[in-house]
Amino acid sequence: MPGEENHGQEVSRVTMAHGAGGGMSRDLIQSVILKHFGHPILARLEDSALFETNGQRLAFTTDSYVVQPLFFPGGDIGKLAVAGTVNDLLCVGARPLYLSLALIIEEGFSLQDLERILTSASQESVGAGVEVLCGDTKVVERGKGDGLFVNTTGVGVVPSNVELSPQKIQVGDQILVTGPIGDHGITVLSQREGFAFASQLKSDCASLVTLVQSVLNPLFSVHCLRDPTRGGLGTVLAEIAADRQVGIQVEEDQIPVRDEVRGASELLGLDPLYVANEGKMVLFVAPQKAEKVLSILKKDPLGREAARIGQVVEEHPRLAVLRTKIGGSRVIDLPAGELLPRIC
Amino acid sequence: MPGEENHGQEVSRVTMAHGAGGGMSRDLIQSVILKHFGHPILARLEDSALFETNGQRLAFTTDSYVVQPLFFPGGDIGKLAVAGTVNDLLCVGARPLYLSLALIIEEGFSLQDLERILTSASQESVGAGVEVLCGDTKVVERGKGDGLFVNTTGVGVVPSNVELSPQKIQVGDQILVTGPIGDHGITVLSQREGFAFASQLKSDCASLVTLVQSVLNPLFSVHCLRDPTRGGLGTVLAEIAADRQVGIQVEEDQIPVRDEVRGASELLGLDPLYVANEGKMVLFVAPQKAEKVLSILKKDPLGREAARIGQVVEEHPRLAVLRTKIGGSRVIDLPAGELLPRIC
Repeated sequence: MPGEENHGQEVSRVTMAHGAGGGMSRDLIQSVILKHFGHPILARLEDSALFETNGQRLAFTTDSYVVQPLFFPGGDIGKLAVAGTVNDLLCVGARPLYLSLALIIEEGFSLQDLERILTSASQESVGAGVEVLCGDTKVVERGKGDGLFVNTTGVGVVPSNVELSPQKIQVGDQILVTGPIGDHGITVLSQREGFAFASQLKSDCASLVTLVQSVLNPLFSVHCLRDPTRGGLGTVLAEIAADRQVGIQVEEDQIPVRDEVRGASELLGLDPLYVANEGKMVLFVAPQKAEKVLSILKKDPLGREAARIGQVVEEHPRLAVLRTKIGGSRVIDLPAGELLPRIC
Repeated sequence: MPGEENHGQEVSRVTMAHGAGGGMSRDLIQSVILKHFGHPILARLEDSALFETNGQRLAFTTDSYVVQPLFFPGGDIGKLAVAGTVNDLLCVGARPLYLSLALIIEEGFSLQDLERILTSASQESVGAGVEVLCGDTKVVERGKGDGLFVNTTGVGVVPSNVELSPQKIQVGDQILVTGPIGDHGITVLSQREGFAFASQLKSDCASLVTLVQSVLNPLFSVHCLRDPTRGGLGTVLAEIAADRQVGIQVEEDQIPVRDEVRGASELLGLDPLYVANEGKMVLFVAPQKAEKVLSILKKDPLGREAARIGQVVEEHPRLAVLRTKIGGSRVIDLPAGELLPRIC
């Protein structure tokens, strides 16, 4: 069979940047993948798809985890695979119910490490109140994988009174983030590169069930939730502005960033705005409820450092703009290419 | 972080046999994985898990596909990833509704090949009447994957009058298979090894929606359906006998096997009983309905070569026994180790 033969034309190939969550990922998905699968729910590219059956709305979401290293301060691929998918269900207002767990193991992988990872996934699922209902295990030859890849796919139920969607975002909405950004990405990168300067840092990897459910009551007028994972907070803001055709304005000095993350980012030439988080949410909230929601978030151990970072504005529609500490402003672009590969 | 360090004790490692669908796969799942995830539905290890929400039974199943080569006569990894998961939903009597599609792509993979595979997955999903509702794309560095791995996770609805389960199998039930066994496994292996002798053969890879739904009416008394993929027909029969504590007797000369598959299996030292299928079902049917069900199956293009191969008996409980063509009999054991790796 022809596999990868090249009959006189140039063969286009997948690059690491196609998987990094920025503009090239978006291009690959839009131009190569979506054209084959036309369902409008898929095309919305939200954190979870919603479908209705028997008068009930269910949320459905999938993620494969290819993080390296498999173990990092604050978590491992098992915890991440549960928390990441649970958080994607939460983004559409669902109560997470069930997960599938599929393992692709490289031949020679340590069974002890597998046990540690499964223990961690199990603990995280108990904490999040989700049940692993089905699974699959495949083994590939040495050199054909990278230790372990994990896929989790989640199902949840959306209560009938909950309606979260970018479509609900309005001019005036306040933008909150549930804590400091960039912890996960910088932690994983520091481990990978052997940097000592970030030794105090750990990943924020966590399931945010309690935190999110504390503000889902429709009285609190939360319009939209987003999970700033691959591509970070900056990508969430740029995407929402473009898709929803609104202006977004955020204040650099209001965005919480830990000193270690800021320092490491400067040394590495990274912008924490684009660094992945695995235990944070971005909320768009009606202005008159923003203070109330913020105070509720701050009562949860996982939201103690929540902050109001900006708002949705009438000016510069389709653009997210950062007002810098020194009084200037710059557009938050969708990053084009490779950010931090294999971060989740 | 310690990763795979060895502090004076021997490190046990995952082998290819752990992924081949035989006894070692079962051991890994039972002794390493299941102990961390205690849900009784998961522990049943059926093709799909069932859960109830809002008075409706939903089926939920996951599979990762790591087949090599990615393209083979009769299909490719895209078609396989749709058909395999659809068939797992069918095994519990569900009407397949939605799939997730998650790709782990190796850096450098040809975009043209990706397009071919997605086209094929898309066509198969249209044919099976399922919608791809959510997806994920990850890229790993060259040498850390193997071209493409695909995970599909499926959701379906089980009609209220359908109840398929090994628990319903009774002594006297007739065992049917929907066509010749071993086509998929021998096709993939022949491609991989470059064998010319199987050049006429193609994989049976197919979604069996129409075929299965034609016999699901409770009037036809189909008690249990199984999808003889990894581990083949032999593993299905040995597992059912052991789990259900019944005797199973099948007649070698009634089991349909194509000449090419038989020939290739002999040369390769394989037993077609244990070779994977990707477009076949094994049915356990009440004796008085077996002829009727067989005649319905034979009317479908994908069931034309269906056959009655044996029955559930009172003798030798927990054992599946093959009566050979020459009048002897032998126990169909669970294969212990490596059968055919990377076949699905």
